[in-house]
Amino acid sequence: MPKSTKQAPVARKIAENAKNVYEKILKKQKPTMITPVRSLANVKYQPKNGYFEMQGKIKQRTLTVATVKTFAQTLKMMALSKQLIEKDDMATKREAYYISKNWGKAGFAEQPESDTIMDDVEAMFGVNREQLKFIPEEKGGDVAGKLIVIDRDASGKKLKIDCTKFGSGAYSIPIDVEHLAFESAAKFILAIETAGMFQRLVKYDYWHKNNCILISMGGVPTRACRRFIRRLSDTLKIPVYAFVDGDPYGYFNIYRTLKVGSGNAAHLNEFFCVPQATFLGVTPQDVLDYKLPTHPLKDVDVKRAKDALKNDPFVKHHKEWQQSINQMLKMGVRVEQQAFAKHGLEYVVDKYLPDKLKNTASFLP
Amino acid sequence: MPKSTKQAPVARKIAENAKNVYEKILKKQKPTMITPVRSLANVKYQPKNGYFEMQGKIKQRTLTVATVKTFAQTLKMMALSKQLIEKDDMATKREAYYISKNWGKAGFAEQPESDTIMDDVEAMFGVNREQLKFIPEEKGGDVAGKLIVIDRDASGKKLKIDCTKFGSGAYSIPIDVEHLAFESAAKFILAIETAGMFQRLVKYDYWHKNNCILISMGGVPTRACRRFIRRLSDTLKIPVYAFVDGDPYGYFNIYRTLKVGSGNAAHLNEFFCVPQATFLGVTPQDVLDYKLPTHPLKDVDVKRAKDALKNDPFVKHHKEWQQSINQMLKMGVRVEQQAFAKHGLEYVVDKYLPDKLKNTASFLP
Repeated sequence: MPKSTKQAPVARKIAENAKNVYEKILKKQKPTMITPVRSLANVKYQPKNGYFEMQGKIKQRTLTVATVKTFAQTLKMMALSKQLIEKDDMATKREAYYISKNWGKAGFAEQPESDTIMDDVEAMFGVNREQLKFIPEEKGGDVAGKLIVIDRDASGKKLKIDCTKFGSGAYSIPIDVEHLAFESAAKFILAIETAGMFQRLVKYDYWHKNNCILISMGGVPTRACRRFIRRLSDTLKIPVYAFVDGDPYGYFNIYRTLKVGSGNAAHLNEFFCVPQATFLGVTPQDVLDYKLPTHPLKDVDVKRAKDALKNDPFVKHHKEWQQSINQMLKMGVRVEQQAFAKHGLEYVVDKYLPDKLKNTASFLP
Repeated sequence: MPKSTKQAPVARKIAENAKNVYEKILKKQKPTMITPVRSLANVKYQPKNGYFEMQGKIKQRTLTVATVKTFAQTLKMMALSKQLIEKDDMATKREAYYISKNWGKAGFAEQPESDTIMDDVEAMFGVNREQLKFIPEEKGGDVAGKLIVIDRDASGKKLKIDCTKFGSGAYSIPIDVEHLAFESAAKFILAIETAGMFQRLVKYDYWHKNNCILISMGGVPTRACRRFIRRLSDTLKIPVYAFVDGDPYGYFNIYRTLKVGSGNAAHLNEFFCVPQATFLGVTPQDVLDYKLPTHPLKDVDVKRAKDALKNDPFVKHHKEWQQSINQMLKMGVRVEQQAFAKHGLEYVVDKYLPDKLKNTASFLP
């Protein structure tokens, strides 16, 4: 495998950090490690930056009899990361856990323990796990449309992957996207909740006729999918429009996670949010404007919506969202993005999407 | 979109069936429709054919005051299918449900109702839903390796999709695979449970060094994924080896579904099973042979295993599986396919897979 040079700064940071520990020990001082506190209590919503941001609270871990095991585990995890970076290899979270089974007494008993240490290391160096070469287990995200992805094969040879050439299939986003580059003259990215709607738009040649990139998120987007959309939008400087079901799950679990990140991973949102995303639909107003068939809100929907109005810093910041959620609660219904099929299968591409895209400035933030 | 000729027989069958109903009505007789009973009670395991097969029980629906609505809905569903076939279009199950919102009193109140009628139509014509142009919602299955998939773009132009050219990414299987053709000189197909292990094998250039096709099932394989593997193996005449976690979920929910299908969709197994699949691992014996780290069996694992020994026709037929399951129960542990990482990340490709592939005849059936 080819050596990576791009990642070197992270490897250097790890070496420096370890050197500090080493020198303190030589001076017979107690070594310490500092990590930011990873919790909602240490988070602020910064509309300017567009994501939940970490504040200054830190936790300090000093080497003592009580902390010796986690201290050793943290150092071993850092060493593993450095080794992976230098070999241009990667390890899934689960693999990292199993690798520790060869660390003697520093081995982890359960994977949640190794995941926690990994999160600490990630926060300590202020980089995302993928840059440390720890890769999530789950995959997700399909792409079709006007995009060329530039990757390398296992021998290091450059590959150009043309996402217009997959027919009814698609390009599947890998679990690590940091090394990808992009070429495209597309006008926008459409991030779609369901595989069914994605396949509909592919079938009807939507990306070709509208010069865009289609991404199927398959429900709540994975880290890799969000990071891919973010890097794509940053690189190409084009907007991202979200097209999801019109229910609290679509609004908060899918769209809000895509746009500003999630509360319990605040140290990562900087990398995994897509602040340039706006909300195309389906909105409660669309239900009226397009006479869509609906379903009654479930109890869990109502609870989630009321919760968001009360506690979600993103919703509390945006009046437009408060209005839409209140409208939904008043109407008492939710709507699926396939509901347009009532007016014929072509309706969504012939009428709804063109209508909405005429006025992107009116999209919910 | 190009007209499809291949599907014409199904459209013709629909027309004939409808004509029978029409003529009976003209003769002032009560029209009837006949569907096979879709349940485990009407199923037999045929080791020779390799899947749960439907027996002769039928249900007959005669047009009466009580059945008039479902009768009408069945005819409307048949008409929709015919129309989709003739337009070379498709509808997801959810879209079909919403289309019915324009059928006046024949509209479905809930999607499970339309799904049931769709299953009836499917069983009535003895074809899979995809041939009726009703497409499942869910997607799944990534491919990398020595394979060229032949598809068409939306204008009907032929496309050759080379699955060796996707770098760290992959080809994502579309939700309808009936129209795809294949070219390959690969020696075998490796069907993998987790995205993490798939990415490991891609990273280490496994398919290139071993002249094979890698498929990531991402848990229990979707219909499209199973059908893709089946068509691939039928066309290329190469074996399929399953590489999944060594636990009852991996054995029965993933592997057995892949190989013989599932009980509650017996009218479909003919299309969606992969009888040529055999089980590479991880077996309980592998845990001992490769000194793998394990986890204790959970109560649900023990229950599922005992259930399979007692009730699963597939397990009851194969002594080898009974032995392996009893061995697992005796050892009291389950094992994940990432556990090989204990011996180093390369171990799975340098040692385990080559070892096992030397003796494919010993794979569990």
